[in-house]
Amino acid sequence: MMFASDNMGPAAPEIMEAVMRANQGHHMPYGADAFTDGAVQGVRDLFEAPQAAVHLISTGTAANAVALATLANPWDAIFVHRIAHAEEDECGAPELFSGGAKLTLIDGPDGKMDPAALRAAILLTADRGVRGVQCGPVSITNITEVGTLYSLEEIRAITDLAHSFGLKTHLDGARFANACAALNCTPAEMSWKAGIDAVSFGGTKNGCIGVEAIIFFDPAKSWEIELRRKRGAHLASKFRFLSAQMQAYVTDGLWLRLAEAANARCAELVAGLRDLPGAVIEAEPAGNMVFAHLPRAAHRRAMAAGAKYYLFPADSSLDGPDDALIRCRFVTDWSCTPQSVQDLLAHFRG
Amino acid sequence: MMFASDNMGPAAPEIMEAVMRANQGHHMPYGADAFTDGAVQGVRDLFEAPQAAVHLISTGTAANAVALATLANPWDAIFVHRIAHAEEDECGAPELFSGGAKLTLIDGPDGKMDPAALRAAILLTADRGVRGVQCGPVSITNITEVGTLYSLEEIRAITDLAHSFGLKTHLDGARFANACAALNCTPAEMSWKAGIDAVSFGGTKNGCIGVEAIIFFDPAKSWEIELRRKRGAHLASKFRFLSAQMQAYVTDGLWLRLAEAANARCAELVAGLRDLPGAVIEAEPAGNMVFAHLPRAAHRRAMAAGAKYYLFPADSSLDGPDDALIRCRFVTDWSCTPQSVQDLLAHFRG
Amino acid sequence: MMFASDNMGPAAPEIMEAVMRANQGHHMPYGADAFTDGAVQGVRDLFEAPQAAVHLISTGTAANAVALATLANPWDAIFVHRIAHAEEDECGAPELFSGGAKLTLIDGPDGKMDPAALRAAILLTADRGVRGVQCGPVSITNITEVGTLYSLEEIRAITDLAHSFGLKTHLDGARFANACAALNCTPAEMSWKAGIDAVSFGGTKNGCIGVEAIIFFDPAKSWEIELRRKRGAHLASKFRFLSAQMQAYVTDGLWLRLAEAANARCAELVAGLRDLPGAVIEAEPAGNMVFAHLPRAAHRRAMAAGAKYYLFPADSSLDGPDDALIRCRFVTDWSCTPQSVQDLLAHFRG
Amino acid sequence: MMFASDNMGPAAPEIMEAVMRANQGHHMPYGADAFTDGAVQGVRDLFEAPQAAVHLISTGTAANAVALATLANPWDAIFVHRIAHAEEDECGAPELFSGGAKLTLIDGPDGKMDPAALRAAILLTADRGVRGVQCGPVSITNITEVGTLYSLEEIRAITDLAHSFGLKTHLDGARFANACAALNCTPAEMSWKAGIDAVSFGGTKNGCIGVEAIIFFDPAKSWEIELRRKRGAHLASKFRFLSAQMQAYVTDGLWLRLAEAANARCAELVAGLRDLPGAVIEAEPAGNMVFAHLPRAAHRRAMAAGAKYYLFPADSSLDGPDDALIRCRFVTDWSCTPQSVQDLLAHFRG
Repeated sequence: MMFASDNMGPAAPEIMEAVMRANQGHHMPYGADAFTDGAVQGVRDLFEAPQAAVHLISTGTAANAVALATLANPWDAIFVHRIAHAEEDECGAPELFSGGAKLTLIDGPDGKMDPAALRAAILLTADRGVRGVQCGPVSITNITEVGTLYSLEEIRAITDLAHSFGLKTHLDGARFANACAALNCTPAEMSWKAGIDAVSFGGTKNGCIGVEAIIFFDPAKSWEIELRRKRGAHLASKFRFLSAQMQAYVTDGLWLRLAEAANARCAELVAGLRDLPGAVIEAEPAGNMVFAHLPRAAHRRAMAAGAKYYLFPADSSLDGPDDALIRCRFVTDWSCTPQSVQDLLAHFRG
Repeated sequence: MMFASDNMGPAAPEIMEAVMRANQGHHMPYGADAFTDGAVQGVRDLFEAPQAAVHLISTGTAANAVALATLANPWDAIFVHRIAHAEEDECGAPELFSGGAKLTLIDGPDGKMDPAALRAAILLTADRGVRGVQCGPVSITNITEVGTLYSLEEIRAITDLAHSFGLKTHLDGARFANACAALNCTPAEMSWKAGIDAVSFGGTKNGCIGVEAIIFFDPAKSWEIELRRKRGAHLASKFRFLSAQMQAYVTDGLWLRLAEAANARCAELVAGLRDLPGAVIEAEPAGNMVFAHLPRAAHRRAMAAGAKYYLFPADSSLDGPDDALIRCRFVTDWSCTPQSVQDLLAHFRG
Repeated sequence: MMFASDNMGPAAPEIMEAVMRANQGHHMPYGADAFTDGAVQGVRDLFEAPQAAVHLISTGTAANAVALATLANPWDAIFVHRIAHAEEDECGAPELFSGGAKLTLIDGPDGKMDPAALRAAILLTADRGVRGVQCGPVSITNITEVGTLYSLEEIRAITDLAHSFGLKTHLDGARFANACAALNCTPAEMSWKAGIDAVSFGGTKNGCIGVEAIIFFDPAKSWEIELRRKRGAHLASKFRFLSAQMQAYVTDGLWLRLAEAANARCAELVAGLRDLPGAVIEAEPAGNMVFAHLPRAAHRRAMAAGAKYYLFPADSSLDGPDDALIRCRFVTDWSCTPQSVQDLLAHFRG
Repeated sequence: MMFASDNMGPAAPEIMEAVMRANQGHHMPYGADAFTDGAVQGVRDLFEAPQAAVHLISTGTAANAVALATLANPWDAIFVHRIAHAEEDECGAPELFSGGAKLTLIDGPDGKMDPAALRAAILLTADRGVRGVQCGPVSITNITEVGTLYSLEEIRAITDLAHSFGLKTHLDGARFANACAALNCTPAEMSWKAGIDAVSFGGTKNGCIGVEAIIFFDPAKSWEIELRRKRGAHLASKFRFLSAQMQAYVTDGLWLRLAEAANARCAELVAGLRDLPGAVIEAEPAGNMVFAHLPRAAHRRAMAAGAKYYLFPADSSLDGPDDALIRCRFVTDWSCTPQSVQDLLAHFRG
């Protein structure tokens, strides 16, 4: 009953086997090896983007920070949703990597930017001239931080707006695969075909040990990305161990199979929660993550049984009235079993 | 015949097995797991430093950048040897992480800081008052970038000098184990007992996949280090995979056995090179790295046979007079075989 | 009819005379002169703060940026009102000087922070642990960006809240004198006696050429402030020209007289606007600045007559229906004449 | 007998009168005024550069920091002489403004870069690829920090070398006028006609209160410079007071007359020092600054008589043998009188 994060579970067997293979023999360091060539080519193929700049890095925060720093001047605003990972969960990494760019927060229901709010923020920023920060890139997350899904049309509404002001667009795809599986679309459809200029393509949360790909469909800044990655101390010397993971991840649809499994478990969990007396589900969960408000008694039983998931606020007390609702988050990963979901639901039902 | 870097070889079997074990079951992310507790405790035990702040990170550049940024204000000079890794090979990572501190370069023979030169640089910096950058930490590397070794007395000369000016000291220990093996001393003797305040304790070059430990013997800045690591996008979510490596590395003397093997191969190589007609060995190699100047013909034969190692400059031509000397570097890793060394030497001899 | 900014008018005669006097003879540069000693002592006396660190600088943005950078770590949130000058009008200077701290925006009516909103933001930030930025200083502005006034009790509510979380407080006093005049209180009462730890004490907008004082009531960081000022390229070499201004400014109550004159003109303007048909005055103007919404026809007449003031948005068209309201801002400076105010009102009335 | 710095003397009467004129009436802030237009045009005319981007700023360190940050990426090396002001006397301002670029120090006699040393440093930097910082701009100073002069041919040797590697060039002209006067050339000849891409054109040391011009002959980055100036908190609100100084400075050759006066006094001083028994003059002073080594007794007499100038190191003791040499620096400014020079020499002679 491990639902705290998709970072909790094991890496997929295919990933581990690839890592083992990468451990055979000697290879040139810093990415000058065949695993890296293969991974980069595999990502380009997957995204139908033969010219794309593709650079691997070990954490999602690093992928975001390098991508955003490459898209933004130090004196720019980066437009993100109020609850974006870049704003809430990266301890200022985008600010560090960009040299002090400002994250300008955009509201919108269900963790998705309201285009009207984005437009207003851009206009307000632009109105300030030299006194204020300048308009920089727009970054959205799919699936969002609260487990909801931008449709392709919703992505397009944001990217069209950004491009109409000459601004670049970034997709934080820490859970790119889960979104793609939910939308039943191709990676290209959810990215450059929908107006996305740069992607953080996540592997870590979806069955890898730790690897993400920074993808820029326009390769003009490829060398700058390499320099920013190195300067950020993220150019792993035994780079083949990153590359081998990504190569396996994009081979034979592994990335999609793992996400589909995680999404399926989440759907089962959501279905069960909908039947749970007193439970309130937030928004419309569509990937592998759901936020809900459950009665305190349900939490008490599940936690006593060893279930792991996050409460908000983190220090919420389990003492008190049984039926008081406490907000919580569940995330399923590829290795989550149907039985584990049913066990959790059984404890909630008591 | 793979001598380009100690990053080329495989990870040690004990390391890979530990990684496999860490892949069993679910664990809390971001270092809240038993592997991390074990690794941290293991490093503290190894260094006989029960209070030390110990934080793992995936690259040596990151360990250096976070450690130096924690020791230096943005307006400080960081005193390093002219050929320090932090100066030459980190693409400005210390500057990025520190917010723009200045690396002030100290000369000295054989890759080792001359204490008199360090003293002069400190005095010159201090003389400038508010106009100049202020005196910050002193960082040395053992074994050095050219494969030589600071003795414990030489380390002490540097750290005493730094401390006499109230400055902190850092040891870049990317090859800490090789130095320890060469000095036949304990980790404590080569660090805090010799006046070192902070260490980058390397694992990657010595048989790990990618893990280093940032060690501060005074734990006062432990939380700051955690924040700097996260902000640098280096807090791996599946942290247990870093920790498992380090835990195995410091268990049962693995770190030392691996380094001793690498050093032994290097000694065999050096012995052979000394007998090679025309070859000139730089300085006094003492760990697992040697710089030499070899006749062009020797290079031509070895490279034709597939040997891998670096020439300086990188674009040195192999065409031209046979006996012209070209500078080169050899590094041995734990997995290097005696046969491989003898094969290389045989090609050199022609 | 110059109401665009209190930066438009001339410097006061006393200020210009002081500058002329500072131009006699030779003096040591970089603040090692008697004018600087006198100015610093004068500020300390004015604030009844004999130990305070006092450092002069030439712009208000610089005073804010250096003060906030000294109070905040690079990984901290700086809590400011959504419309703070530091957020809207400094092009990211606080981010640059602090090394990338994050401005966390607090709402509240009339340009004043709502303590409940501040409390919620602190709690939300604190809840994130290492994943998010940490809680840093709280900065308020008096008079605010929209010309309203924090009472001493309102200041105390903010500073008590900040201190209860261990956070430092900063007052952006670009119009400190106007606020003091409006509150009829002493500088000490509006600063350290109300729980303010650091002040940007403005002179430029109130009759100087260009000088502000950074004041820290706890002098522990005095040297750091000097280094940050120099590193920000703000240590004027002919420093005496800054100091002479500040010295005159704090002598014989000049600072207060100038502010009282500006406030009086603004009060006359507000009184006139209240009688203007169709005009709507925002909030409760209390210093030398007022925001209002006036009928387009009134704007048209005033601007045709050469009046200068800002419209929002800047590119608002004067063409269109006469009675449509357009938002605007008026600022009076010490040199503004009663006649000028009456002339402006006459044009508005038509 | 005030020879500590050209920052010690008064501003020239023409400058003060211009400042007084700028204090008449109301003007739009932030440079949207006629003084600024006039100053910018005046600088363009002086440099025969009708398209140049010209931006005023209040300190020489700020001019250098903004110019170098505009020319260098954060991951670049900025090549400067070992004793450049940017290296020794700006407390890391170039590092702050550039986001952490690295100052790579070039040797050369008499404070002038040796082209061969520059070439070697560029090649060494370029050889490192992604591991090291990249090659950025080359910055020289004329007159140099030790009072010597680059000839036009020497400037051209540096700029040709830089351009052959695709690198931009910057001239720190804190004493541009003194160099121009010494070379008897036009500003254009000493800048863009000699291959200089950007200039810090100093006014402060040469009779202004505090104003410098950042000049980029290619105006493509003009807006970026404005943003960097604002973000550096250097966009003075009452900008006309900066502009009025610069406007007067470039009118009717004032800049040149002031420099010629200062240079003439320095020449008289040098002539006298050459006759002083035991004195040793460094290099070939050519502008308004001279470094010399004088007998301790001479220093003792001059200082006892109230002479002001700097000793190196700053804490050199005047006690001890009479004939021991102590290094010192003399700088003359436009207001220095022949009598003052002769008085100083008389004290030295005893």
